[in-house]
Amino acid sequence: MDSILVVGSVAYDTVSTPKGRRDKILGGSANYFSVAASLFAPVRVVGVIGDDYNPQDRRILEERKVDLRGLQQVAGKTFHWEGKYEKDMNEAITLATHLNVFENFHPTIPAEYRDSKVVFLANIDPPLQLQVLEQVKSPRLVAADTMNYWIKSKKSELLKVLERIDVLLINEAELRDLTGSYNTVRAAKEVMAMGPKVVVIKRGEYGFILFNDSRYFILPAFPVEEVVDPTGAGDTFAGGFLGYLAKLGRAHTREDLKQACVNGCLLASFTVQDFGLEGIRRVTMAELDSRLKSYQQVIS
Amino acid sequence: MDSILVVGSVAYDTVSTPKGRRDKILGGSANYFSVAASLFAPVRVVGVIGDDYNPQDRRILEERKVDLRGLQQVAGKTFHWEGKYEKDMNEAITLATHLNVFENFHPTIPAEYRDSKVVFLANIDPPLQLQVLEQVKSPRLVAADTMNYWIKSKKSELLKVLERIDVLLINEAELRDLTGSYNTVRAAKEVMAMGPKVVVIKRGEYGFILFNDSRYFILPAFPVEEVVDPTGAGDTFAGGFLGYLAKLGRAHTREDLKQACVNGCLLASFTVQDFGLEGIRRVTMAELDSRLKSYQQVIS
Repeated sequence: MDSILVVGSVAYDTVSTPKGRRDKILGGSANYFSVAASLFAPVRVVGVIGDDYNPQDRRILEERKVDLRGLQQVAGKTFHWEGKYEKDMNEAITLATHLNVFENFHPTIPAEYRDSKVVFLANIDPPLQLQVLEQVKSPRLVAADTMNYWIKSKKSELLKVLERIDVLLINEAELRDLTGSYNTVRAAKEVMAMGPKVVVIKRGEYGFILFNDSRYFILPAFPVEEVVDPTGAGDTFAGGFLGYLAKLGRAHTREDLKQACVNGCLLASFTVQDFGLEGIRRVTMAELDSRLKSYQQVIS
Repeated sequence: MDSILVVGSVAYDTVSTPKGRRDKILGGSANYFSVAASLFAPVRVVGVIGDDYNPQDRRILEERKVDLRGLQQVAGKTFHWEGKYEKDMNEAITLATHLNVFENFHPTIPAEYRDSKVVFLANIDPPLQLQVLEQVKSPRLVAADTMNYWIKSKKSELLKVLERIDVLLINEAELRDLTGSYNTVRAAKEVMAMGPKVVVIKRGEYGFILFNDSRYFILPAFPVEEVVDPTGAGDTFAGGFLGYLAKLGRAHTREDLKQACVNGCLLASFTVQDFGLEGIRRVTMAELDSRLKSYQQVIS
């Protein structure tokens, strides 16, 4: 079993959906990723929090034995995102982004994290993603996420990141922005030419596409009848995906990648069933196995 | 093997897509359906054409041995739809709809068609769909399609249709309009309560959901790298679906419904690869089998 390093955001989210509203609940890519990935393997977090960070929130991660030694606490407020979802839960509408302490964040990887064999560069500024890669020793597997904002504003740096990673996890809107192609299956091929050997396209309620070795693997999402809050579904997917691959502790096969995607997809279906981290934080392997059995019924 | 009756539109379509433009090519729900369904079982068409109908176009159907005795030719012009697709090929933008002879169409089912065991009520005015049901003797299986226009303008008549059919084929936007629910999996349940024992949700490039006996079966579409013209994909799906069930010549099982969906989905993937009926009209069972093998690789 390998340890996983994740570098990403720790946030307080204020979110409204047709199912309700929550104020300043714990969120951020690093947290969703960690809670999911730690089901499978040890996770080490690098991120930044402000002096308003609630010690109770630390427990959510500690319950999963997530290593928080790389969490820098500095003066100021923690990153705060405010957003809403209307009837169409596929699209988040950002109402406000207060970067706060995240604005001057520079990832410092603690010495005891540098041997991490699996690395996840969550959605942060591409130059910071490159800084992370400078500090890790010899990872076996590096995956990254990104977003439209970086695709538009930091394209050349992002292309450098793509040259150095193994797996890109991306959603369909980002894929269109990155390649200019509206055809998802062809766009996946174009991204491969930019560097990653594996591309995973997250399609929300429509599931995912795994593309590697010139082959597609495509499955729908687990059908969820009550979506409460889609925030964090993509990072949960990434956590389940990389967690599964880290647990292997060896080079993955194509079959492993497929299983990793299925685990990511199923864990994301738990996340969307409640606000914030509530849907995923207490999910057990037994619950995941049970959902896998239901999923097999749906797709077989 | 059972014969299939389809009542729907015969149209000339003028269509622009990012891949090109075609003027007044043969289209219409009855034609897409017939060309697909006739791969499996005999198809009988009821529809209306004007005096501008090109006898060459009749051959496209005759090559598939489609029975055209129910095609009424009347004075005036054939139904003409003009539309375009922009980069996002999931959405047709209607530029003009000239109903022409279709405006006064009343389906008269020829005596020799009335024993049809499988009936497809393509997307036409719900009162006309009910007129068809009055004229057929004792069909084993009745399926219907509809569209937002009828959901909004003829809801009560449409609900009467739903009470009398076995299968509703519907896309996600229509499903939202019909139920008011943005959650596709829950909306499917709500439609079941309106009458149909089987609901098939067509999700375009995302595949389909089959819902019956309180169970979901969900698969993605076959990945097509060059979508040329999505027109007719939904009717092609319906043709493959009902053609497969008609060929059985007996009451279907849940497993049959799954296979029927897969066949509909794969045939639709041929339709979108060329303009109008060009992508589907010459597809053979061997080509369909070959695509099925590729598809199994993609989803297994």
